Formats: sequence, structure tokens, C-alpha cells
Amino acid sequence: MTPVRSSAGLRAQSAVALGGGHGLHASLSALRLLVDDLTLDELTAIVTVADNGGSSGRLRGEFGVLPPGDLRMALAALCGEDDWGDTWARLLQHRFAGEGEMRGHVVGNLLIVGLWELLGDHVDALDWVGRLLGAKGRVLPMALTPMDIWADVRGLDPTDPEALTVVRGQVEVATTEGVIASVRLEPPDPPVSPAALAAVEEADWVVLGPGSWFSSVLPHLLVPALREALVRTTGRVVVVLNLEEQEGETGGFGAADHLAVLAEHAPELRLHTVLADERRVGGELAELREQAAACGAALVLADLGADDGSPRHDPHKLAAAYATLFEGDHA
Amino acid sequence: MTPVRSSAGLRAQSAVALGGGHGLHASLSALRLLVDDLTLDELTAIVTVADNGGSSGRLRGEFGVLPPGDLRMALAALCGEDDWGDTWARLLQHRFAGEGEMRGHVVGNLLIVGLWELLGDHVDALDWVGRLLGAKGRVLPMALTPMDIWADVRGLDPTDPEALTVVRGQVEVATTEGVIASVRLEPPDPPVSPAALAAVEEADWVVLGPGSWFSSVLPHLLVPALREALVRTTGRVVVVLNLEEQEGETGGFGAADHLAVLAEHAPELRLHTVLADERRVGGELAELREQAAACGAALVLADLGADDGSPRHDPHKLAAAYATLFEGDHA
Repeated sequence: MTPVRSSAGLRAQSAVALGGGHGLHASLSALRLLVDDLTLDELTAIVTVADNGGSSGRLRGEFGVLPPGDLRMALAALCGEDDWGDTWARLLQHRFAGEGEMRGHVVGNLLIVGLWELLGDHVDALDWVGRLLGAKGRVLPMALTPMDIWADVRGLDPTDPEALTVVRGQVEVATTEGVIASVRLEPPDPPVSPAALAAVEEADWVVLGPGSWFSSVLPHLLVPALREALVRTTGRVVVVLNLEEQEGETGGFGAADHLAVLAEHAPELRLHTVLADERRVGGELAELREQAAACGAALVLADLGADDGSPRHDPHKLAAAYATLFEGDHA
Repeated sequence: MTPVRSSAGLRAQSAVALGGGHGLHASLSALRLLVDDLTLDELTAIVTVADNGGSSGRLRGEFGVLPPGDLRMALAALCGEDDWGDTWARLLQHRFAGEGEMRGHVVGNLLIVGLWELLGDHVDALDWVGRLLGAKGRVLPMALTPMDIWADVRGLDPTDPEALTVVRGQVEVATTEGVIASVRLEPPDPPVSPAALAAVEEADWVVLGPGSWFSSVLPHLLVPALREALVRTTGRVVVVLNLEEQEGETGGFGAADHLAVLAEHAPELRLHTVLADERRVGGELAELREQAAACGAALVLADLGADDGSPRHDPHKLAAAYATLFEGDHA
């Protein structure tokens, strides 16, 4: 692709965002703003496919397909901002109410599963939805087969608080009352689309997180082909930490703990930057800086949280932090 | 709209096609060819909304919406012929298989119902689907509330073969083992979109049929506002007869019988042309010509049937017959 000059006069760059659910949606909502202002000329999302709950879980159970929900949310985050893109994105996100058999299903999930059946190609089908939305980037699945997350969880055995219990399924892992020691995937070595591997290897920037740490962020590191691409890429890897612990998955985890479990699951991965909210780090600053340094990363603090005080990233603040990072490195 | 010259150098005209199901699909597949060659510059389908079976019936029962299936089929018949229109039309027509809760549902039905819920406007939502497909015309519902067809049927009472039994529901009417004497609609005076009434009143040509006679073609004549528009229009009304009787609805009916029940249900409607297949009229020619004349219509015979011998109209043959009719009147 011909390099494009951004509004700041810099060469446009490419970014890949890895994650799932609301965290990835927030990251993509920020990164798309950098496509608009030409800081980025290529944006790719690589999305977890381990969901086993809700509409996605039902469709996965019925058809044996990838759970479509996180892919749909990522596509919606990238929709064109005109009336066309906005309307189709809202339709994709529309959830049926009522009391009947369709209750809880989401139109976009059904549309994506229909396209998979029709076209027989996961990536081709998602590209069609992207074209429908006028999407500002490409959305790819983390793996080409549906995945299950298994976790070793401490504290579930009343007779032995140190014993590890295996918890299976994304929903079950995300809501466990114990403390997650580690996660793994089943199947352990799924096929990955060449497009996803190429995107990671050729990216200038790779963004991991924010999001449900064990069930949406870490899974990418557990897919061998994807982890190898992440280790091999010359792109700079940025980890965006969550604004607070998440009941269930990361109850009691501080910012440094999030980074520590990431390092434990992919010790060979070198990070470039750890991005954290300056108001949420609090007394952990020294510990977090040390943990980041151990991963090879600089710690960058910025104001990232939504003004309403919710534990969500504000897309414009996150975009500003990304822009400073991406442009700073070329300044 | 600025008049357009057709390939034959004639002023382009507007047409409205009324019906439902496979019959309307065949008629629209023919009429769209006349949009392509500029014989028509406006094409509108007005579609029955009385289906109570299959995916449409389930969605109608669950959400209280118009049954979307016949509307979806009409839209698919009008899709753009490029890769874009073709792919989205095939997705709209894709029916889920398997053994689960989605079995039998059609993607386009779910998409249309989702748009109705999202936009709150039947016509606006159908126009959005039309734009998605690059449709060659507009698709409107016959009425803005879901309808039921009730039929008086002879021959179902074993104690009195002349007794009339009321049969309720499109599926039940279409598959009755008795002889249908008449049909009516419930509710009897539904609201009709202004767009549908305007299309009928302003059309150069109004095409009724082919299709399931009692459950897809006659219902339009039973909606008071629509019947008044059909009587009032200066457009020429063309009735396209089916190629053969339909088991259930019109078992034992000849071509003239089809026309006779139409006249009984809308005695004040003046017809311009009755179009029938020359090979299927057989010994009924004199009777059919007389019945057509009684409705004010000329009888036009042409080769219309599919070459495979099935009782389906061939779109290209039907288009040629329409073209001769539409252009002949302006010659």
C-alpha cells in the first residue's frame, strides 16, 4: 500500500488490535479515529472465538460454527460513520426481545452465521460484512475453529484452598468465584488464517487489551501460530491495561498482576509499551513500572477513563494516547 | 421522473405487480428485465402479508409483525445482477438447516424483522433492504397489519356436500381438500401505505398474478383501499393466469374459472388484458375469451411456460410478452 501522510505529516502506519468483547470494541473505537485522521492506513482486529454463552453460544451449539458475537461487535465498532454504515451497524447489533424462540439472538450473529454457511469461508464472509458497513478496518477470527477456554482455578475446593480445579468454558471462567491461576485452550493448536498471521507480522503496532483478561486478551497468546507471529513481528507490542479489576476473572488483581499473568502465559513475548490509566494505578506505580520493564516495556500513563466514572475507556482519550505513542515513535 | 427512452425508442413506463410467493417472484423476474432494457423506469411490487406458515408464520406469531417471507422473495427477485446484489440476495434467501431452534428460519426474514423493530416503519425498512440489494424496483406490503385469509369452502362437511365451511389461515386455505367458493380478509379493512396506493394510481400498467389464486392474488382485491385504487387507476390492468390448476386452492379450476372468481371478488374492476399460455388453454379458448371480454379485457395468448415442462413461467418468455404488450400500446 502506498504510504499516506497523516495530518501531522507522518507516514501512515498499520495497527492490529487483539482481544474480544467490550474491551476490543473500546480499543477499535479509538483506533478507527486514527484511520479517519490518516495516522493509520491499515487496521485489523483479531478476535477471540471462545465464547460459549448467549446468542453466540446457542449458534455455536446448533451449527458448530465460530461464536459470532465478538466478531460482530468488532465489525460494528469499525462501521462507516454515514447514515448507511450507522444503520447497518445498528441492525447488526439489534437483539430480539420478547419471550419466543428468537429471544436474545442478535441480528448480526444470524447474518454472519448465514454468510459462513453460504460462502463456506470465515474470512471471506467477515469481509463481506465489513464491506456492508463500510468498515474502517478488517475483522478476523483468532482461530478458524471454535475454541474452549479451560482454567486452573484456586479456591473452589472447600477441603483444600490451594487445590487447582479445572473450569471449562468462557462463561464459566469469566464468572468463577475462585482465583484463576492459568488458562489454556482446547483444542490447543487450532488453525489460524494466513491473513491474521500476515497482519500481525507486517503491523507497525500490535495492541493487546483492554478486555476480560483471561477470557478475551490472553487466549491470543495461547494459540501457537499466533503467539509465534507475535514473537516474530517487528511491530511494537502495546498492552493496554484495564481500568480496574473484573469481578470473577480478575477479582483482587492489581495492574501489575495483570501484566504478570500475561508474562507467565507468554514469557518470550517482548512488549514495547504498557499503557495504563494514571488515576487507577495508585500505590502500585513502582511495582507496575518494574513489571513492565521486566517485559521490555516502557510504562506510559495517561487519562483514559470515561468521564462518567465507569470502568470503560473513553475512545477519544484512548485515541489521543495511541496517537501520541504512534507518532512519537516516528517524530 | 424524467421520461426515459427504451431501447425501442419508446417512452419508459411504470408498472406495479401484485401478488405473493413464487408467482410474484416469476412476474418480477420478468419485469426486472424490462427495467434493464429501459422499457420500464419504475417498478413496484405490492405483496400479500397473510402468510401464517413456515419461518414467516413463526416470526409473525412471535413478534406480531407482518409475515416477511413473500416480501423477502420479491426483494430477492429484484436484486442487482452484480456480485454485490447477487451475494446479498443469496444470503437473504438462505434457510438454516440442522435440527435446532433456527431450523427453517430464513436469514432475510430475520433481517427484515430486525429492521422493522429498529426503524419502526415497514416501508422504510423494506427500502433499506432494497438499497442493500441494489434492487431494480420497490417492494411494499399489501397492508400495514398482518392479515388472515378466511375461505368459505364447499365439500368439507360429509353430511352435506353443498354446505360451506369456514377455513382460516393462508396455509389452511392453500391446502384445503374442499372447493373454495370465496375468500375474505381479517381484519377486513386494514391500513395501506400511501406509497402503495400512489404506485397503483400512477402506474401505466398493473399486473395481477400469476400465483396462488385465492391466497396470493385475490387478497389484494379484498383490501378496500387497494381495491379502490385499482378501480380508480388510469393504468391498464393485466391479469396473468397460472399455467395450471393448483392442488388444494384451485383443484379442478380451468383458466376461465380463475378469471371468473376474480370477477366475482371485484366485479367493478375493469381489466385491459388477460395473458395466458397458448398451450395450456386447450379446449377452453372460447369460454376464456368470453370471460375476458366480460371483464373488459382482450385475451392475449403466448408461449410462457418453462421449457422443462414445470408449471412455472419462464422469466424471459414472460418478459417478452410484457414487452409486446407494453410497447404495443404505445406503437
